[in-house]
Amino acid sequence: MISSKIEVVPVILAAGQGKRMRSTYPKVLHPLAEKPLIDHVLSAVGELGITDPAVVIGHGADRLEEHLRGRAVRIVYQHEQLGTGHAVAQALTLIPDEAVVLVLYGDVPLVTSGTMASLVALASEGALAWLSVHVDDPSGFGRVLRDDTGAVTAIVEERDATPDQRGICEVNTGILAVRSSHLKRWIAALGCDNAQGEYYLTDCLALAVAEGVPVHMQQSMDPDEVIGINDRRQLAEAERTLNRQRVAALMSHGVTVRDPARLDIRGELVVGQDVEIDVGVILQGHISLGSGCYIGPYSILTDCDVAEGARIEAHSVIEQAQIGAGCRVGPFARLRPGTKLAEQAHVGNFVEVKNAKVGPGSKINHLSYIGDATLGADVNVGAGTITCNYDGANKHHTRIGDQAFIGSNTAMVAPVEVGQNATIGAGSVITRDAPAGKLTLARARQATLDGWKRPEKPLKE
Amino acid sequence: MISSKIEVVPVILAAGQGKRMRSTYPKVLHPLAEKPLIDHVLSAVGELGITDPAVVIGHGADRLEEHLRGRAVRIVYQHEQLGTGHAVAQALTLIPDEAVVLVLYGDVPLVTSGTMASLVALASEGALAWLSVHVDDPSGFGRVLRDDTGAVTAIVEERDATPDQRGICEVNTGILAVRSSHLKRWIAALGCDNAQGEYYLTDCLALAVAEGVPVHMQQSMDPDEVIGINDRRQLAEAERTLNRQRVAALMSHGVTVRDPARLDIRGELVVGQDVEIDVGVILQGHISLGSGCYIGPYSILTDCDVAEGARIEAHSVIEQAQIGAGCRVGPFARLRPGTKLAEQAHVGNFVEVKNAKVGPGSKINHLSYIGDATLGADVNVGAGTITCNYDGANKHHTRIGDQAFIGSNTAMVAPVEVGQNATIGAGSVITRDAPAGKLTLARARQATLDGWKRPEKPLKE
Amino acid sequence: MISSKIEVVPVILAAGQGKRMRSTYPKVLHPLAEKPLIDHVLSAVGELGITDPAVVIGHGADRLEEHLRGRAVRIVYQHEQLGTGHAVAQALTLIPDEAVVLVLYGDVPLVTSGTMASLVALASEGALAWLSVHVDDPSGFGRVLRDDTGAVTAIVEERDATPDQRGICEVNTGILAVRSSHLKRWIAALGCDNAQGEYYLTDCLALAVAEGVPVHMQQSMDPDEVIGINDRRQLAEAERTLNRQRVAALMSHGVTVRDPARLDIRGELVVGQDVEIDVGVILQGHISLGSGCYIGPYSILTDCDVAEGARIEAHSVIEQAQIGAGCRVGPFARLRPGTKLAEQAHVGNFVEVKNAKVGPGSKINHLSYIGDATLGADVNVGAGTITCNYDGANKHHTRIGDQAFIGSNTAMVAPVEVGQNATIGAGSVITRDAPAGKLTLARARQATLDGWKRPEKPLKE
Repeated sequence: MISSKIEVVPVILAAGQGKRMRSTYPKVLHPLAEKPLIDHVLSAVGELGITDPAVVIGHGADRLEEHLRGRAVRIVYQHEQLGTGHAVAQALTLIPDEAVVLVLYGDVPLVTSGTMASLVALASEGALAWLSVHVDDPSGFGRVLRDDTGAVTAIVEERDATPDQRGICEVNTGILAVRSSHLKRWIAALGCDNAQGEYYLTDCLALAVAEGVPVHMQQSMDPDEVIGINDRRQLAEAERTLNRQRVAALMSHGVTVRDPARLDIRGELVVGQDVEIDVGVILQGHISLGSGCYIGPYSILTDCDVAEGARIEAHSVIEQAQIGAGCRVGPFARLRPGTKLAEQAHVGNFVEVKNAKVGPGSKINHLSYIGDATLGADVNVGAGTITCNYDGANKHHTRIGDQAFIGSNTAMVAPVEVGQNATIGAGSVITRDAPAGKLTLARARQATLDGWKRPEKPLKE
Repeated sequence: MISSKIEVVPVILAAGQGKRMRSTYPKVLHPLAEKPLIDHVLSAVGELGITDPAVVIGHGADRLEEHLRGRAVRIVYQHEQLGTGHAVAQALTLIPDEAVVLVLYGDVPLVTSGTMASLVALASEGALAWLSVHVDDPSGFGRVLRDDTGAVTAIVEERDATPDQRGICEVNTGILAVRSSHLKRWIAALGCDNAQGEYYLTDCLALAVAEGVPVHMQQSMDPDEVIGINDRRQLAEAERTLNRQRVAALMSHGVTVRDPARLDIRGELVVGQDVEIDVGVILQGHISLGSGCYIGPYSILTDCDVAEGARIEAHSVIEQAQIGAGCRVGPFARLRPGTKLAEQAHVGNFVEVKNAKVGPGSKINHLSYIGDATLGADVNVGAGTITCNYDGANKHHTRIGDQAFIGSNTAMVAPVEVGQNATIGAGSVITRDAPAGKLTLARARQATLDGWKRPEKPLKE
Repeated sequence: MISSKIEVVPVILAAGQGKRMRSTYPKVLHPLAEKPLIDHVLSAVGELGITDPAVVIGHGADRLEEHLRGRAVRIVYQHEQLGTGHAVAQALTLIPDEAVVLVLYGDVPLVTSGTMASLVALASEGALAWLSVHVDDPSGFGRVLRDDTGAVTAIVEERDATPDQRGICEVNTGILAVRSSHLKRWIAALGCDNAQGEYYLTDCLALAVAEGVPVHMQQSMDPDEVIGINDRRQLAEAERTLNRQRVAALMSHGVTVRDPARLDIRGELVVGQDVEIDVGVILQGHISLGSGCYIGPYSILTDCDVAEGARIEAHSVIEQAQIGAGCRVGPFARLRPGTKLAEQAHVGNFVEVKNAKVGPGSKINHLSYIGDATLGADVNVGAGTITCNYDGANKHHTRIGDQAFIGSNTAMVAPVEVGQNATIGAGSVITRDAPAGKLTLARARQATLDGWKRPEKPLKE
């Protein structure tokens, strides 16, 4: 959060086409860890408590507008792409003179709110606060020139730099904060007398220096936060960077991660103590993992709660499900939306569960489909059991009472109810309610045919 | 393609044993991304439009001969392994004096056809064209000596190098191109008065310099292309290198790759626009991915076409299948050879499909086996459905008409036909054709037993 | 093995809490590749043929004691944590003067027995043998000071180091070996007049120098072996390091590893020739892989034997199973404890096998559960077959004779026997023994209902 005394208006430039993405989508809508690039910037802005940033859109404006609909942003159109100075100018008319403008980029998604806040703080005191970064290989970037006292004098573009200047490794990020009144005056003075015929925001720096406005060139602590996304390689690198940060944070919280390079965190996590996450796991959406949980290799969890001590074994795919304490799930389990497993329930291999409550201690261990169902406590569902929940038109519910035993290869044609402590014989098709405490079955008589001969394999030629 | 004026004969040395591979296979037959090492070299040669390269074989000649049978190569035997000079000599008798000889190595699989073409071009003009490379750590390699003008004077082996020479990081790759007449003369002059008692091709360089034949030492642009494979570690490194190149090319084409280090491309890809490939995917053989496709985590595709907008969800294994536009497959789907899914078809979890056509909009969502079958449009196949296609001797076909509804846990004993719009009751075994539009079932009567008592668990001692 | 002339007593310090692990477990019990940290140290000690090391415990003593119960170690309690000198002192009372003490750390798990042996050898000849290591970034570590002759003069802690000393990259590991008599004398002389108020073992070095006892500062060949584990990040790094070493050893043995960074070896392996391991494989416990085996992507094997030429296809999970020569398993197979597949058996997708012997050439290819069963040779088990082995109280056995053919979707209610060459009709529930050579089935009559109308979808509003 930043001080609320001064109005701060982020201006997020998002009008570029992103040709090198070779995409039909506007660049800033490409997802990074399941979230569009621009939403990362908006989230960081939101962390500062700032609402209503201005977003400058141009290429793909329709899609961007649709994406931003209903959100607390001010959309500004840049109809021609005439450079960053021109882009910012489109937004400035909305912004009062005394406000601080914070210039951000929709394709620079990892800038932290901390960095933003410190630029804003400097700008609030009257300075032009600009973000630079030290890189190993500065090629392609504008270099930051400083005098003998360390004061910034200018930014020089690579093509205009002397060989000595090219050796400078402090480069321009384009991110800055300054009073709106200053920016309006400088942008009005920008020319477009350059190779691209564009108005460059960078040229404001020299104007500030000329006017004697104090310039604070702040160096980013982390080169990763200013990664810009221009192609799919950079998109992949940014996703790896973001993921590394998230995994590192998780480990510092006390989670055992078997291989940090093979855990994908694509959402938000709440974790207990002594959680262990094996290799190849993907965590998406909102996930909570209780103390002592184990998430097995190659399992994929999306929007779920896993209570303390539960074990998700290898190769399980779980979405919008609640897993109770001490449950065992998988390997090869598929839990779909609406699954609620009470404590100590077991769901085993090649089992799909959907929109079903499974009571405490109940077991569905093998090759079953349980959909639209309510199971009591300590139910045992045999291998190959199927709830026939769909009649081709509607979905129906199956209810199974506590301690019921469902024999293997049973089909239960919903709507149907199996009573408490009832037993269903293996291989039955249950179409009517099965009473509590009794054995119900639907089974043909076994017979052996005497005359029958097994088909013979055709002779091979 | 190179100019066709001059005959070019690649000589590929492939006679070595490769002891450090600790293998029963000849070294050059070890697969790199599913293709034997030597085939990578042959492919690059083929890209130049050159046919009938000479392949010099020795160790494991039987297996290599079998591997090369029927292909446009000339096999040359080296019965004793007396060095690279001796190996090339075995091939030279086949090659006319005016031809250009291009010396390659069966265990240096990543040399590009572009590099080969530029060596050949230099040799065509009379030079000895030799390939060197700059490496960070030159130990073990022959160093390239140059005079003050930069002209190559010799290659010195490490054991003969002075301390100063050892500091040279430009090293010999052994790859060269030159007129056959030169090479014949030089090789005839080679001695074997060295530690190994072998005839070294490298010694030709000094002979060329002595004769005043112009020597062009060309530096490889990419150290990775001259990786030699001597052990399994290097084999693994080369596979990673090749894979990195392929993934990079894919990204520059505009494919989103969630983690470049976790996508294996082991064949040839054709991709549309805005394809997304999640982590852990393996693509083998010939694969085409239509625009807007999504390939989910840990899925493995071999020789398949995935049409536009299709989604392959996590953990699917697909081989020799065609996936129509907008299909949804997986998670945990197994599509085997001969599967053809029409547009908008769904195949869900724990479902195996083999040699089957599935009509548009049809769904096989859960725990089923559909083999040797033809399904019409908008068929709904319930969970646990099985086509009994094998009678122990022959395979038979199942036909299911449009809009048919197959109840869960149904077995269809082929050959059998289910008519259009027919409904099959859950849990049926269908042995005869089921007429269109009607409900067919085969189901025992449900009964509840009164006297029955559930077995009791033995008391624990 | 080290010479047995002199008694050697390792003292393993394991009393620390490991706050940065943020765990309820004592630090040294955290598993590294499935084995607690301290067990790695104990294993290396065991490789030297040394028994009865002393383990100094403090934080979490109960759990550690329980973990060490019944093992050949001497447990020593450090009730207050007053520094490493104090910790060692607790053990010294057990150790005779003439013995060599080898000081190790329960949270430094990768020190090799070779390194230990060479320290012990030096100590046996009267020296204080100390282990240092060269690191790229020495920050945080004590620096090793040497005089002009290269002789060690002291270890200086970072906070006490001059700027010049801070530039030294040879750092202290804390690992040492020395005669017990020396150590007793020095430790008795230690003070705790320092920032932490602790007794530092490191201070013994200066005492040795002062006394003129020869000090051998031995540099570790491999910085990785002295990694200390203080947090989950370091734990993950150590696991990666250990894994890299194991994978490298495997490759040098002649195993093809498709991606060394994506193979996890968490146990002990015995491998034949020309084994290939694809990406994402996890090997746990005791594993043997016969010559020519292939282990497919993302498969997880725990405690199993895979005989020569067997193929484990992708996404298989196998535990405590024996796979015969030439078997094919998977993809998506789950073999649980007690599975024994004879040669050439096939287990296919979505199949679970548990406590079952499967005869040579038998096939269970699709969607089946085979538990508590004995199958003869060349049995064909159809898709969707289930052995109903559990009656809610007890497990029963199913026996299937040679060449039997089990039709699809069959349930066999154990105890039951299917005779040799018998055929079971698809969809049967077999409750009594099925005689050899004949067709047995239990199947309802197929009927088509005329008047029935399919339920209609509700009209959408």
